[in-house]
Amino acid sequence: MASANPARGMRDFLPADVRKRNYVIGIIKEVYESYGFEPLETPAVENLETLMGKYGDEGNQLVFKILKRGEKLDLAKAATESDLADLALRYDLTVPLARVVANNRNHLPKFFKRYQIQPVWRADRPARGRFREFFQCDVDAIGSSSLTVEAEIISAACRILQRLGFDDHSVRINHRELLRSIVADAGIDNETDALVSLDKLDKIGPDGVKKEMLERGISAASADQFLSAVSGTTSNSDLDAVLTFCDGLPVSVDPSLARGLSYYTGTIMEIVLTDGDFKGSIGGGGRYDGLIGMFGKEQIPACGFSLGLERILVVMDERGMFPPEIADSTPADVMVTNWSEESVADSLKLANELRSQGLRVTLYPEPDKLGKQFKYADSIKVPFVCVLGDDERASETVKLKNMATGEESVLPADAIGKSVRGQLTE
Amino acid sequence: MASANPARGMRDFLPADVRKRNYVIGIIKEVYESYGFEPLETPAVENLETLMGKYGDEGNQLVFKILKRGEKLDLAKAATESDLADLALRYDLTVPLARVVANNRNHLPKFFKRYQIQPVWRADRPARGRFREFFQCDVDAIGSSSLTVEAEIISAACRILQRLGFDDHSVRINHRELLRSIVADAGIDNETDALVSLDKLDKIGPDGVKKEMLERGISAASADQFLSAVSGTTSNSDLDAVLTFCDGLPVSVDPSLARGLSYYTGTIMEIVLTDGDFKGSIGGGGRYDGLIGMFGKEQIPACGFSLGLERILVVMDERGMFPPEIADSTPADVMVTNWSEESVADSLKLANELRSQGLRVTLYPEPDKLGKQFKYADSIKVPFVCVLGDDERASETVKLKNMATGEESVLPADAIGKSVRGQLTE
Repeated sequence: MASANPARGMRDFLPADVRKRNYVIGIIKEVYESYGFEPLETPAVENLETLMGKYGDEGNQLVFKILKRGEKLDLAKAATESDLADLALRYDLTVPLARVVANNRNHLPKFFKRYQIQPVWRADRPARGRFREFFQCDVDAIGSSSLTVEAEIISAACRILQRLGFDDHSVRINHRELLRSIVADAGIDNETDALVSLDKLDKIGPDGVKKEMLERGISAASADQFLSAVSGTTSNSDLDAVLTFCDGLPVSVDPSLARGLSYYTGTIMEIVLTDGDFKGSIGGGGRYDGLIGMFGKEQIPACGFSLGLERILVVMDERGMFPPEIADSTPADVMVTNWSEESVADSLKLANELRSQGLRVTLYPEPDKLGKQFKYADSIKVPFVCVLGDDERASETVKLKNMATGEESVLPADAIGKSVRGQLTE
Repeated sequence: MASANPARGMRDFLPADVRKRNYVIGIIKEVYESYGFEPLETPAVENLETLMGKYGDEGNQLVFKILKRGEKLDLAKAATESDLADLALRYDLTVPLARVVANNRNHLPKFFKRYQIQPVWRADRPARGRFREFFQCDVDAIGSSSLTVEAEIISAACRILQRLGFDDHSVRINHRELLRSIVADAGIDNETDALVSLDKLDKIGPDGVKKEMLERGISAASADQFLSAVSGTTSNSDLDAVLTFCDGLPVSVDPSLARGLSYYTGTIMEIVLTDGDFKGSIGGGGRYDGLIGMFGKEQIPACGFSLGLERILVVMDERGMFPPEIADSTPADVMVTNWSEESVADSLKLANELRSQGLRVTLYPEPDKLGKQFKYADSIKVPFVCVLGDDERASETVKLKNMATGEESVLPADAIGKSVRGQLTE
């Protein structure tokens, strides 16, 4: 018999999980839309050539590749992976965005502001909090090099976290040009090596970063000068403007902020939680004026930000931040009992009548002992049960039981919706 | 340069597409939840062995298989596809459901009612209206063999179509036991051959079905008797009960309804549109009391239904059924202009002020000629523009222009939300 587990690093989301995910995603969407960002969705499957070469050597290894099919798959002649695979699973949301912009330049507005909330897949070694399928929540503004773009993206991200109930988020910003000149001043040739090392500062500390820089062949003197410079103060006119535009938001310049991705060209930014056991990055982004052109003829300025949905969900769970209607969600407001073969049709009608009153209603599917039906209602935590037995049918009423208080009332069917809503908001 | 097209048979959904899809999906969710169905999501990627052998030989060929990675991929020793692939893309939502039920039997209610709206992938030859990535909208009730389950599923599907604005949907039902006895009475040995042929009746007519039956080795006499029986009338106690429970809904028994899938055991059902150019099936399902056990020790009764989202979207588009706020959707309610470097910060503040009044607001990102800004506002079809120039800043007002009527009014910022909402609902 086949295993019933999901594949390694993949997760099933049971109803309670889906409700929490959808609650957070709903707020993200609502806030991004309030800033004029529009929804975009791209296919899970991309041509392999669309993804190859975009994520570095390590990234290439982590892309899930899809086997060719039918005659295209010639096992006898296959010598390399690219003889075997022609498609691949989406690895991030930025490369598909660049492809869509190139492919639809004439159908998209001059300033294209899109959000995209979809899963991506990476063949990483699964670990605590690291999955092979996970959602990215990206927002990008294409077509303007104005720093209002950075400010609006930071404002939107802060607004999302505030709406979700966070009060310890703060935004750190820096600028790739500043880092570049610090790297050059320190006499370091390989900027990427220096920034990839610096990006680990939060995790491994300055000594760890220095050790890694030495391993990458950077001299001790250069590493010291570099680390000293990034622990000082820094600024430039771009960062000054972003700070001015973000007046009132928790934004500050951090000269040691690196962001690993090599494609950033200007402002870089990261949003972190600062309190308790769950501090650390929950999103980041920056300006990348050279990336969108990779599928088209034009270079188009762009700036984007990605919120870490999986991380946000973990922290909200640990901190108990979900509102009660999400944390204690139930499959229905009311369960209608099922008394006898003769009364089934009446129970079905009652369920539909209550739905037309705006209630979420589940029907106990078959005639059964009333005790078992109540036990089931308890197990699914439904707050109300409507009993429709012979007495109630004879008197054209329904017995409504509040499962939390035990209170029972006998009402005509058309009064149930109002009574349930009244008791729920008490 | 890499191609900017999506992979063959895959689609990008631009904002207008996503809004239409989300509108329909939102109504489907809302109605299913009002019937007590709960959301479930499963990963796109399943173990290959989870999917193999579940969809017949043809299905096996259409499953997208994922190349093994790293050391697991031994090209020199690979002799068959299964040496190369260990994972696969979800092919339907029913096999993952069976796996989840087996894996979580103790965490799920005795009667598990779930809906699942996610994409599936099939390596079919792409054609008009047939894609390699498409959404399925499945609803299934696990754990009861009561016919109230069929009735509630039919009721929910009809309610969804009614809510979407359809008025020509009707439900055809039949029963596998009835078909089985017709097949046996006609002296046909291979039930599957007969039902797969019959399933094409709508497309190829009775002569076509007969021809196919003859090709499958069924005698002319048997085929004639079979076709005569399925064009007659039929009923049994299950169908009678479903008809009674569905009182008031457009449900009728169709003795020729076959449904191709071999796993149905009882009631089968299909929902069709009957009017105009777009008649035909837009969903179907049935009872399958022998399938859920494939990953576990117990057999558990089940009944499910799948709505054809892609087909519904095509028909709604062709019939112009989307409400204006979806059909003519805009990225924002209001665009705020950007006058000069000096006024940028004020424009940003105004945009945030309007958002806090509940409006969706986009900011023109950079100072520009007002004419160009209005042209852009026109191009994105935003219904209102707020001009914040030197005069307005001096008088602490905003000029609000209704782009449809051309009407302009000068207001304090805190009066804009009310004015926009008033003009939008006029």
